[in-house]
Amino acid sequence: MTGPGEMSGVLGVDSGGSGLRAVLALKVGQEGRGTAPLESGEPVRTGARGIDAGHLVEQLVPMARQLMADAGIATLRAVTVGAAGYTSLGDSLRADLPSALARELGVRNLALAADGVTAYVGALGQRPGAVVAAGTGLIAIGTDLTSWRKADGWGHLLGDNGSGAWIGRAGLDAALRAHDGRSGGSAPLLARGEAMFGPAGTWPGQLYPRTDRPAMLASFAPEVAACADGDPVAADILAEAARHIADAARAVCPAGGEVSGEVQVALTGGLFKMGAPLLVPLRAALTDRLPYARQVAAGGDPLAGAVRIAVDLAEDRLTLPREEDMLYVIGEPPAPEAHAPKSPAP
Amino acid sequence: MTGPGEMSGVLGVDSGGSGLRAVLALKVGQEGRGTAPLESGEPVRTGARGIDAGHLVEQLVPMARQLMADAGIATLRAVTVGAAGYTSLGDSLRADLPSALARELGVRNLALAADGVTAYVGALGQRPGAVVAAGTGLIAIGTDLTSWRKADGWGHLLGDNGSGAWIGRAGLDAALRAHDGRSGGSAPLLARGEAMFGPAGTWPGQLYPRTDRPAMLASFAPEVAACADGDPVAADILAEAARHIADAARAVCPAGGEVSGEVQVALTGGLFKMGAPLLVPLRAALTDRLPYARQVAAGGDPLAGAVRIAVDLAEDRLTLPREEDMLYVIGEPPAPEAHAPKSPAP
Repeated sequence: MTGPGEMSGVLGVDSGGSGLRAVLALKVGQEGRGTAPLESGEPVRTGARGIDAGHLVEQLVPMARQLMADAGIATLRAVTVGAAGYTSLGDSLRADLPSALARELGVRNLALAADGVTAYVGALGQRPGAVVAAGTGLIAIGTDLTSWRKADGWGHLLGDNGSGAWIGRAGLDAALRAHDGRSGGSAPLLARGEAMFGPAGTWPGQLYPRTDRPAMLASFAPEVAACADGDPVAADILAEAARHIADAARAVCPAGGEVSGEVQVALTGGLFKMGAPLLVPLRAALTDRLPYARQVAAGGDPLAGAVRIAVDLAEDRLTLPREEDMLYVIGEPPAPEAHAPKSPAP
Repeated sequence: MTGPGEMSGVLGVDSGGSGLRAVLALKVGQEGRGTAPLESGEPVRTGARGIDAGHLVEQLVPMARQLMADAGIATLRAVTVGAAGYTSLGDSLRADLPSALARELGVRNLALAADGVTAYVGALGQRPGAVVAAGTGLIAIGTDLTSWRKADGWGHLLGDNGSGAWIGRAGLDAALRAHDGRSGGSAPLLARGEAMFGPAGTWPGQLYPRTDRPAMLASFAPEVAACADGDPVAADILAEAARHIADAARAVCPAGGEVSGEVQVALTGGLFKMGAPLLVPLRAALTDRLPYARQVAAGGDPLAGAVRIAVDLAEDRLTLPREEDMLYVIGEPPAPEAHAPKSPAP
């Protein structure tokens, strides 16, 4: 047993487009209560072998050691790494992370998860339901606690319907229709687009050379929301986005009779900060498509979900479905004694 | 006057994504009858100053000299260069091409045109109306013979609605809806997509790293057409494309009362080789939106349009609207005597 004077904790990690974020939960059981997150500020590289496990370890180990030192913790009872791209690019993480984190940090219990899974758990915990995570992109994740389901998340050219990039693109399309005199145009969106990006004729030259085209498209989404009150074209774009989002949620949500107890649906991510212009039609679309699912506020963000998985793993109460490309767990059953970290390899 | 034994001709040039094409029309007046086109196979570079005039000259001069030598022609009475990107990137062509082609080829009469203008003239000649030019992208060009109008042509993220990239993207979106169990999905399109690109899960990894994403999207458009007979989702995509195309045509087409005589509308470009699945709903949409415009077959392609402009320029009967960023003409009135080419600069 961990002695009363010996502090242990769990580590939650979120690897995304803006880098690694890591947080330490000091006392198992106090979910989401932890240290202030540390951020690496540098996205983990992706190479021919997928997500670069070495680059992740290189960033994570010093962050973890600093969090442990600051909190006076000697032992990590469990670690969860949630990573964007894990489902299709996670092979190297499964191959290399367990041994590297055991060697460097003495980690015995490790969970690797798709960022959609950490988003789900952050929002709903270990309950059945559906979560839509949306910002520039969009993915829906659901579970009946037997398996994971996902929908969309295909990126800005193949899907991500209803996402920030999708809404922004639809708004710019409507602006350019007005510019050209085609039907379906919106003069208010054209005015906002020109205020934001300059004359319409310059937009292609600004957009196409960029590598972050989806982000530039998504940057226009709040302008669509700002026009929705008086402009029927903008309002229609948000209503269509709401239908797409609810469609994705329905595709992954277990049916009411499939699980015991209540099915919940939650929304998480920056897109939903857009407020009423999106949320009002979205709540209606969810009620229409998922009448049996209770709409609840997300409990926490994906980093909180990573911590939650680590806590449940440490306490041996992780009941979520384990699938290699969604939630992969390497670990021993909780040991009767605390694990002392091995010394780093010489 | 050009003596009876002295051959002269005009040169038409089309600069596009697959390089330069040039054709010589041997006898002024025989529109579109000329030599077999020569092709450079190398797209003209675009740099910070726009389309690289030096690179264009470097490719064009030897092609022109070869065409002239093969045909036994000493004098070019006029040249037209139609270029993709001319409207926004044509400054350097206007600045540098007139002197370079005068020096190298003795050209006195030169027209520079947007590829949409050469497409228009190739399709309809010097008549009022509207032309939609579409392949991977899509643009509509119209004129009342007083000014040029254009609609769409904004590229695959901002518009090109109804284009090959647009149809292909909509088809892949419907395929992935079926994959996910979202509404609006098409199992036939999913089957064709997986036959073409492999398992759906691999599509994002194939598409997003490419630099020719629009071409990859457009490569799926014929599969949508092939499904349209039995699959209502595919048929709806083509019907929506038809509405977009007709919208663009209507936006640029002069009203029936605006011009004297008949208004014509024509379609040109690779998209329309798709045949009945697109053309049947498109003809209906054009009849609906432009009931006063006669739908005619395109007379020729953009290269034929470049030749036609050069012929009309040489004969001093070019009545099309002259606008710097659409159709720019540098020339003298036809001289009483043929121009002898100057020797190349030493």
